[in-house]
Amino acid sequence: MEQASLRDLNEPLIDHAEGQFFLNEAFKIIMEEVLSNGTDVKQKVCEWKEPEELALLLDLGVRETGEPRDKLLQRVRDVAKYSVKTSHPHFFNQQYGGVDYHSLAGRFLTEALNTNLFTYEAAPVFVLMENEVLRGLRQLVGWTEGDGIFCPGGSTSNMYAMNLARYQRFPEVKSQGVWALPRLSIFTSPESHYSVKKGAAFLGIGLDNVIFVKVDDRGRLIPEDLDEKIELSKSQGAVPFLVSCMSGTTVQGVFDPLDHIADICDKHKLWMHVDACWGGSVLFSKKHRHLMKGVDRANSVAWNPHKMLVAGLQCSALLLKDTTNLLKQCHSANATYLFQQDKFYDVNLDIGDKSVQCSRKVDCLKLWLMWKAVGSMGLEERVDKAFIHARYLVEQMKKREGFQLLSMVAPVIKERMMKQGTMMVGYQPLGNKVNFFRVTVFSPLLSQKDMDFFLDEIERLGKDL
Amino acid sequence: MEQASLRDLNEPLIDHAEGQFFLNEAFKIIMEEVLSNGTDVKQKVCEWKEPEELALLLDLGVRETGEPRDKLLQRVRDVAKYSVKTSHPHFFNQQYGGVDYHSLAGRFLTEALNTNLFTYEAAPVFVLMENEVLRGLRQLVGWTEGDGIFCPGGSTSNMYAMNLARYQRFPEVKSQGVWALPRLSIFTSPESHYSVKKGAAFLGIGLDNVIFVKVDDRGRLIPEDLDEKIELSKSQGAVPFLVSCMSGTTVQGVFDPLDHIADICDKHKLWMHVDACWGGSVLFSKKHRHLMKGVDRANSVAWNPHKMLVAGLQCSALLLKDTTNLLKQCHSANATYLFQQDKFYDVNLDIGDKSVQCSRKVDCLKLWLMWKAVGSMGLEERVDKAFIHARYLVEQMKKREGFQLLSMVAPVIKERMMKQGTMMVGYQPLGNKVNFFRVTVFSPLLSQKDMDFFLDEIERLGKDL
Ligand SMILES: Cc1ncc(COP(=O)(O)O)c(C=O)c1O
Ligand SMILES: Cc1ncc(COP(=O)(O)O)c(C=O)c1O
Repeated sequence: MEQASLRDLNEPLIDHAEGQFFLNEAFKIIMEEVLSNGTDVKQKVCEWKEPEELALLLDLGVRETGEPRDKLLQRVRDVAKYSVKTSHPHFFNQQYGGVDYHSLAGRFLTEALNTNLFTYEAAPVFVLMENEVLRGLRQLVGWTEGDGIFCPGGSTSNMYAMNLARYQRFPEVKSQGVWALPRLSIFTSPESHYSVKKGAAFLGIGLDNVIFVKVDDRGRLIPEDLDEKIELSKSQGAVPFLVSCMSGTTVQGVFDPLDHIADICDKHKLWMHVDACWGGSVLFSKKHRHLMKGVDRANSVAWNPHKMLVAGLQCSALLLKDTTNLLKQCHSANATYLFQQDKFYDVNLDIGDKSVQCSRKVDCLKLWLMWKAVGSMGLEERVDKAFIHARYLVEQMKKREGFQLLSMVAPVIKERMMKQGTMMVGYQPLGNKVNFFRVTVFSPLLSQKDMDFFLDEIERLGKDL
Repeated sequence: MEQASLRDLNEPLIDHAEGQFFLNEAFKIIMEEVLSNGTDVKQKVCEWKEPEELALLLDLGVRETGEPRDKLLQRVRDVAKYSVKTSHPHFFNQQYGGVDYHSLAGRFLTEALNTNLFTYEAAPVFVLMENEVLRGLRQLVGWTEGDGIFCPGGSTSNMYAMNLARYQRFPEVKSQGVWALPRLSIFTSPESHYSVKKGAAFLGIGLDNVIFVKVDDRGRLIPEDLDEKIELSKSQGAVPFLVSCMSGTTVQGVFDPLDHIADICDKHKLWMHVDACWGGSVLFSKKHRHLMKGVDRANSVAWNPHKMLVAGLQCSALLLKDTTNLLKQCHSANATYLFQQDKFYDVNLDIGDKSVQCSRKVDCLKLWLMWKAVGSMGLEERVDKAFIHARYLVEQMKKREGFQLLSMVAPVIKERMMKQGTMMVGYQPLGNKVNFFRVTVFSPLLSQKDMDFFLDEIERLGKDL
């Protein structure tokens, strides 16, 4: 109160010199703690604390008055210290480990520029750049034209596809809601990502209308069963409208047979969506792109460069074959305060109405800068490398005893690795398989010795169990 | 091709030393171009280029091979140069101008740590921190308990509220979809943000079921008309379930009378949502918080610290009064690969299933660090300052001739300011009012002389018209 009444509020409240000094110091801490120590195999991947203890250590509560510079810098240090080092070579826990410095520079620049990807006037560079990056990704899919948008994550990209498929078939849904439509049904693999279910619930379609198609013993969707399930659904009075197929399932990395599925979609005139959030990056690889043969026949593809390509969270592209401006028609609200039609430039560059968001973060710059830095060939190498590591691991596991017997002890091994901070890897059951570890090994930072470390460490942590 | 076959893919593809050097150099460019030059009133706020010319200048296309360091650093410089300087004091164009260095440090740290706010094991610090920040915001609303989540923007927060309101009333919607429900209706002000419409379309409710309530001559929703419209909708066979009211409309900054609206919601047992994306920050101010009197009676509040508080895009909180775990019940999919129930810590800390996203960016750290740095009092000052500037502008405009006559010439003045790069401010029509400029003046960087500059500049740009 004192302080406030003493300050002249007609003057700026931000001191640039002090602010820039602080940012400089924080940058040094980030470099040291997160990027140097945090990627050093001799250091821990996490510094485990029980929640109560961590809350105390961090002193999280916010207060009336501010804090001095040194205390704030210590906070930066503490946040870094107790956070998981997702760039550490022994972070095998999720599909976003690793670091790319060009991407990271792009992310810092994005944050500093702090703009919104909705109009050309507010984001001239990024409107053009997003367009170009989407074009580059579409080209890998095999499309010379089309549309697309970056979404805040693959779940949202998958949801968008669902909404577009619905709108294309029944445009009246936009004004009248689902009540004007017959009951719809969606088809997908039981190994599909849970975002299909979340999307169906959110969009008012309902979980019961997501129909799971049988998979073969490798986890690939069986086209014949898809055909039968579609017929069955029709006979039960529903209108099938969307098949969501997988290029790289979350747990096992399975690729559905897209060409066969496309035949079925053609036959029944259904929207074919490919959830390639995880696997899409194989399109960079001449060796592995056959896994997605037929993807060009899809209507939409969701692809997360924040996963296998290490572009950094969030970076998810929804790619569309459509050339009729469906995305904008489906999502537009034509707000006059933002999308004035009497502007002095081509208002088609105001892409904001393609999105259901208003503020939309710039997610293209980091990918663009990384792509410029290493080229498509560099990204191809990363994909090929991921496959080499995966194959090596499988071979080595076959040679070692005991790697089949992890199921009951997985939670205990997990607890031990976390508390010792030596590595992080996730486990789960699947179908009628009991608990197993899912090790993600796509990071460009990894070498073969990290694979050996993983195997040795699982053995060490579990040897008395 | 050559290059790829020469590299040993068993070894890391990232060179940390080179990467960190690059990041360091990029940081210097960001400091200089974006934060020093970009906030200097003597420099341009934008460097206008026609799209075709800009595309050529930036050489956006991605290629097979990568580029050398110097070229990439030049690209960083170019992106900075041709991007709009949203931190510049003469960027009055949108609700997110300005910069806070503590927040920016938090954003850099967030990017470097690159984790996902879904489980305690992946984001121990941020699970606890988000919880604490949400608690702090809820306290300002007047709630000692409740729930909440950060969403990728206020549009998504508003959509979440809509889905929660629907689910609370009709939980069967999650499994059966909207077909199992009577036709629903939503009530809001015609001056509400377009995200209400986008949300209704996306969730399968439909634009026709969004009913606009009359506003008074200041733009405030009229509670009596709300009551009548609800009765009318019922009589037409719909089930009203949600009132979305405004604390700070996008264009005029109007605050709806929350207490009166709460009475109507009580009477009809409707979910009361407050879209305080823009205005919510008045809750920090003892002087201005009366504008939101009655907000504690709402069921949900959407509040964007990335607007008035300059926390940086994206930062939007959805706050809930609910204590029954509605958010999780409504959105959960219980994925076994992520939310294992046999973990060694309290699985209630795995908050990911509250979201319809899977990957979710950490949006709390930047707000937390800024809040720690300046305290609630510092944020209060910023809000009070915004009102002081707004009042000053109104007074000055009354004194100057010609400020009523802008309508026909607004697009021309806008074009001139952009091409000269002297300032940026948006214009639009509203209801039966013709084009006018909407000047946003909340940035803590501003001083009274920036207000004078704005007025002088409009006069200068328009004097021959
Ligand atoms: C196959 C697949 N699809 C979609 C998603 C969702 O992507 P996001 O986490 O960006 O929402 C994931 C995430 O794990 C995934 O593995
Ligand atoms: C009143 C209001 N509500 C909601 C929003 C949407 O917020 P966001 O841009 O974060 O989606 C805005 C944005 O301008 C707004 O002004």
